[in-house]
Amino acid sequence: MRQTATAYAPGSIGNVGPGLDILGLAVSGRGDEATFTMRDERGILIAGAGHPDLPTDPSRHATAIAASAVFARAGYRGGATLRVTKGLPLSGGQGGSAASAIAGAVAANYLLDAGLDDAALLECALEAESAVAGRHADNLAPSLLGGLVLVRSLDPIDVIRLPVPANLRVVLAHPDQQLQTRDARAVLPHDIPRDVVLHQAANVAAMVAGACLGDVALIGRALDDRIAEPARAALLPGFIAAKQAAMAAGALACSISGAGPTAFALVDDEVVGVRVAAAMAAAYAMAGLPTATRVATIDLRGATVR
Amino acid sequence: MRQTATAYAPGSIGNVGPGLDILGLAVSGRGDEATFTMRDERGILIAGAGHPDLPTDPSRHATAIAASAVFARAGYRGGATLRVTKGLPLSGGQGGSAASAIAGAVAANYLLDAGLDDAALLECALEAESAVAGRHADNLAPSLLGGLVLVRSLDPIDVIRLPVPANLRVVLAHPDQQLQTRDARAVLPHDIPRDVVLHQAANVAAMVAGACLGDVALIGRALDDRIAEPARAALLPGFIAAKQAAMAAGALACSISGAGPTAFALVDDEVVGVRVAAAMAAAYAMAGLPTATRVATIDLRGATVR
Repeated sequence: MRQTATAYAPGSIGNVGPGLDILGLAVSGRGDEATFTMRDERGILIAGAGHPDLPTDPSRHATAIAASAVFARAGYRGGATLRVTKGLPLSGGQGGSAASAIAGAVAANYLLDAGLDDAALLECALEAESAVAGRHADNLAPSLLGGLVLVRSLDPIDVIRLPVPANLRVVLAHPDQQLQTRDARAVLPHDIPRDVVLHQAANVAAMVAGACLGDVALIGRALDDRIAEPARAALLPGFIAAKQAAMAAGALACSISGAGPTAFALVDDEVVGVRVAAAMAAAYAMAGLPTATRVATIDLRGATVR
Repeated sequence: MRQTATAYAPGSIGNVGPGLDILGLAVSGRGDEATFTMRDERGILIAGAGHPDLPTDPSRHATAIAASAVFARAGYRGGATLRVTKGLPLSGGQGGSAASAIAGAVAANYLLDAGLDDAALLECALEAESAVAGRHADNLAPSLLGGLVLVRSLDPIDVIRLPVPANLRVVLAHPDQQLQTRDARAVLPHDIPRDVVLHQAANVAAMVAGACLGDVALIGRALDDRIAEPARAALLPGFIAAKQAAMAAGALACSISGAGPTAFALVDDEVVGVRVAAAMAAAYAMAGLPTATRVATIDLRGATVR
């Protein structure tokens, strides 16, 4: 047991293209941080929720929920004070709730020297993600492990970290619009025609092959989502134009990050990335949407104790 | 142009586990062979169809259809005599129609020195497979290329040959029962619930990851088909017992090969393969079905000119 512990977890792209709920990619440069300090009373006291819109009720805050699950597994009956620093936007589609949960689980595990392994940490963080965003691990797993991660199964947890081509870069474009995850999930079809199912499965598998074989062109042409993207594009003014602009500017692929509103593009060159970012921002501006963009590398480290 | 040309194409497992219509594996030891000999008259004359139940009408024989497509692409307006030697069972679920088509396309390409590339050969063979079995390339692609092949797309043809772990072996068990491909396809659901879709996609992708990363255990646990196998098991008496017997005897995984009736198991050891084959045969025998089994390596060469 330590007196204090801090952990950082990076943001991530969930639903990478056809990988709805099953494929996620950790992105460098921004993330969430959680610091726990031992206190005498029981339970978690949120001294800093990380954002004015986030709850201070620990039963509703992703970081505290994940940490409580770690406390329970470790048999710890004491308490801790929590301060969260959010580097990721709320409801942005950049894996913010997952990063907050992972940072909480990793920091709590370190605080207590509990020795939980990756699968156990994911289970704890999944309790949080299920409560605040939905029961899926495609943001959690890359936020914990870094890189590109395939979620084969939740019951039991089985995630596979994949190699990532060294020259792969991500462009994130965050237009000034709101889209709640629950609204983005509500438009997903409940039943899917078999031809679409087979196409989607083939393309997720081809993305994995492209990653493993270092074939960025294959990753690009396999990033073809015919389930979530068509359903959600209607909720995201400007997205279709931004995607067209990204492709015209040289992107390998472009789709919605997580449940949106952030859009992402993949590129194989930093300079192309800058050009793609500008093209996407210009397209959103035509739709009346100011847009923050950045070009990022893949985060290969995942969550870290600080 | 040559006076005569012969090509061999191996059998294959289609629909490998969750890879319905998109993942196929070439199997050593048995295949189909096609020999063309130039003749003066136009068109293909079938002098040997390869089996008494196969048509001698060239517009209905897979080998002749594929060869005719090659002739057309090459601009060849002459004729040829065709003799087929079938090493694979009819309607067995061992990729027999695909092997016959691929052997025809490859032999015709060699006969005419037409220089068609793999994609063009697959398009020619796909015309045959579409006519006799259905429009899918999960048997054609491994029969042409060898190994484990993912079919990302048919329009345009985009297939990805994957690495195969060196110790992977295949057990084939062919019970003495009939199942027509069209009947096996008729039981497939038209629409599929989203949770099943995501599980299936995750598991196909995980099989690809397992192959690329050389992780046979991952291949085994990812070989989990919740679409075709449950629907088809009802048409295949003895299969469920044979699968249970295979798993109990040490198989990594077991499922239906193609549209059946052949069942296959994957093992990581030749000796285990022999044990699994015996266990599967015993289970089918309990259901009153004499069963031919064999343990085979993966065919890594694909179709060859002889």
